[in-house]
Amino acid sequence: MKKKSIGIGMMGLGIIGGQVAKVLTEKADMLAEQAGCSLALRKIKVLPVDLERPLAQELPADLLTTDVDAFFNEPEIDIIIEAIGGENPAREYLKRAITSGRYVVTSNKEVIAKHGAELQALAQQYGVGLRYEASVGGGIPLIAPFQYDLVANDITGIYAIINGTTNYILTRMAREGIDFPVALKSAQDLGYAEANPVNDIEGIDANYKLAIMASLAFQAVVKPEDIYREGISRIGSRDFRYARELGFAIKLLAIAKRVDNSIEARVHPVLIPEDSLLAKVDGVYNGILVEGDLIGKVLFYGQGAGPLATSSAVVADVVASAQDITFHVGNRLKWQPDSGKKIKPMDEIETRYYLRMNCADRPGVLAQISRILGDNMISIASAIQKEADDVAQTAEIVLTTHPASEKAMRQALHQIEQLEVLKEISNFIRVEHI
Amino acid sequence: MKKKSIGIGMMGLGIIGGQVAKVLTEKADMLAEQAGCSLALRKIKVLPVDLERPLAQELPADLLTTDVDAFFNEPEIDIIIEAIGGENPAREYLKRAITSGRYVVTSNKEVIAKHGAELQALAQQYGVGLRYEASVGGGIPLIAPFQYDLVANDITGIYAIINGTTNYILTRMAREGIDFPVALKSAQDLGYAEANPVNDIEGIDANYKLAIMASLAFQAVVKPEDIYREGISRIGSRDFRYARELGFAIKLLAIAKRVDNSIEARVHPVLIPEDSLLAKVDGVYNGILVEGDLIGKVLFYGQGAGPLATSSAVVADVVASAQDITFHVGNRLKWQPDSGKKIKPMDEIETRYYLRMNCADRPGVLAQISRILGDNMISIASAIQKEADDVAQTAEIVLTTHPASEKAMRQALHQIEQLEVLKEISNFIRVEHI
Repeated sequence: MKKKSIGIGMMGLGIIGGQVAKVLTEKADMLAEQAGCSLALRKIKVLPVDLERPLAQELPADLLTTDVDAFFNEPEIDIIIEAIGGENPAREYLKRAITSGRYVVTSNKEVIAKHGAELQALAQQYGVGLRYEASVGGGIPLIAPFQYDLVANDITGIYAIINGTTNYILTRMAREGIDFPVALKSAQDLGYAEANPVNDIEGIDANYKLAIMASLAFQAVVKPEDIYREGISRIGSRDFRYARELGFAIKLLAIAKRVDNSIEARVHPVLIPEDSLLAKVDGVYNGILVEGDLIGKVLFYGQGAGPLATSSAVVADVVASAQDITFHVGNRLKWQPDSGKKIKPMDEIETRYYLRMNCADRPGVLAQISRILGDNMISIASAIQKEADDVAQTAEIVLTTHPASEKAMRQALHQIEQLEVLKEISNFIRVEHI
Repeated sequence: MKKKSIGIGMMGLGIIGGQVAKVLTEKADMLAEQAGCSLALRKIKVLPVDLERPLAQELPADLLTTDVDAFFNEPEIDIIIEAIGGENPAREYLKRAITSGRYVVTSNKEVIAKHGAELQALAQQYGVGLRYEASVGGGIPLIAPFQYDLVANDITGIYAIINGTTNYILTRMAREGIDFPVALKSAQDLGYAEANPVNDIEGIDANYKLAIMASLAFQAVVKPEDIYREGISRIGSRDFRYARELGFAIKLLAIAKRVDNSIEARVHPVLIPEDSLLAKVDGVYNGILVEGDLIGKVLFYGQGAGPLATSSAVVADVVASAQDITFHVGNRLKWQPDSGKKIKPMDEIETRYYLRMNCADRPGVLAQISRILGDNMISIASAIQKEADDVAQTAEIVLTTHPASEKAMRQALHQIEQLEVLKEISNFIRVEHI
């Protein structure tokens, strides 16, 4: 016996919620055909302040409620969409939705990154679906591939440009030779960066998204605090100039790798070869490269944010939930995280490095630096010494290395800093040959 | 009541079938966890000749049968994988599998492109799943996005580099300035092209794949014979030189667009801007750009062929089928093709064009050609005249146009061919600004 109509409740009527309501309403016929039943938006939980907004005024008044208990007590709601964002009260609302037997769809990366394991266990216990495709990469399919399309693979690596704001800023810096503060200001003026940009530029947003992807890809619990994180604010226009000279682009990457039972997870700026496909992912676009033993390399590219793209993923999850309800399928995700997997401390990772240093313009400086690197078992791949400043009598030295351990590199940097000839280590960026 | 074990039968033990058997066997534990039940390979239908192959010798003898009736009468087979390829007898076998109540997984593009509608209707009638993710793009998720992830979108366009052999040949031509026969020979020597390469180089393979994607994307029946098709054999090294000078790459694209109830579907070489992401899809890789009203542009990139990548998709489909069987879900695809949609005749499409002509090296030649184009309402976007051959007293003229109808362009070409000053229309390639 198939249900003729599935009831939907939504929490939040901001930019995402508003667009989701619009799609559910305007595309009702098409979605009913896809879902095999009609999808009826029955109630929206809003804040008092939302009632004044134009969108709220356009909707039937009895569709909106500011009373959270009334919302959860609404009888004919089968699916609850959480479009509030942030950790709290979203977490409590999601738990209440699940424990009241509702299928849940959310676009909330923070709550899934921090509490995904708890919520998934609860959804399994209550036999309902928990879907969150919109939490990573907007409308780009990124959750589904790990849950369905790539399940036969042992996923070995994820390399992701997953934050549009930072990618926009880095693209402007690369193209125009401008410095970070100028590019950030421009991004803010154009609405691509928020007035308080810390979540984006410090890699916090990318960190949440990587936690979600790595947990799924490696069947493990990878929490935001397990992931090493550096932002982009210390990248300078000079780094872009040297990177280009060396044949590299600079991107903020979210990287997760697995070797046996050891997981590496980190978010930081990276030099990648300029002919890499990821190097061509510019502006606000996202690009996510996934490596598996069977598929080799697969790249997913698209708009990773924005109300339209996000609504695409939210509504697809609603349709899939409705199909599951129709077919009496409870929680179909087999996510049994393996507690045997360990997160590798950052000290133990191995990668290549780019170093930019300001030194006294004297003979033997490069020799002193090289000796320290050599003593730490780090071998140099390329060296550039130029741009001497005659007045200050300084020279800039740029080095790239072959793979070395982060621990050795940190120790070498510490020793180089003690050199009398060194004015400053201007920058230190990891290099990945992908 | 969940089934503990799902029985699998496979037809065919070639390169794909052999790899699928390997994955099902070697990854049995991991797949059982993903599927929620064990997946037991119970019988493989082979040809007598297959029994001599090393792989067949490694498998338990009672797993193999050459008797098709014995195969279908095997009692404990819930899912049948068809890995034979080609139109017949695959079509009959798939019908027999469905009508005997088995869930079906196939990697066969030809049979799905030609008979997908019939097989899907049959699967709906018998309440079993029909899955064919591996039929397009190897392990790249391309069927699932249209069936699940992008269902909230009105898909407006598909632009796909979907044949690795032709993309490899075109990449070699672009990089090395060699002509088609040399590049083809090299691709054959390296095993990237078959001894009889017609299916690839004439766009037949791409045609099948586009038929499958367009049918899903537009909820219509788009058959291979509805799709205009041109291969790559007439592209010359000179075309690559001019294209580069004009800022374009040359790719074999499978294109499908929808405007209201009208569908445009065609496979042919295309000039695309060199800074387009599709222009960076090189070698044997595939890249599929999908445009929708909500997602904007999404690109999927990866290895579109090969036993490993293909087995990734086949086994993912097997896992999804097993989950559906466990949950008592029959056919979950709501594919109700809308017969109101019409395929646009090629004459009615509008695009830009690149023309390369060999003319007498005399004054006024460009004027005569321009007048004919103008008379047909075609306006010129750029013109190059050079490379005069002093001995033959000829000059090469290359033009690109603004958008014009194919009908007008064909008529203009016919009129240009009548010009006394024209030696030859050397090439005529469509241009897409994507």
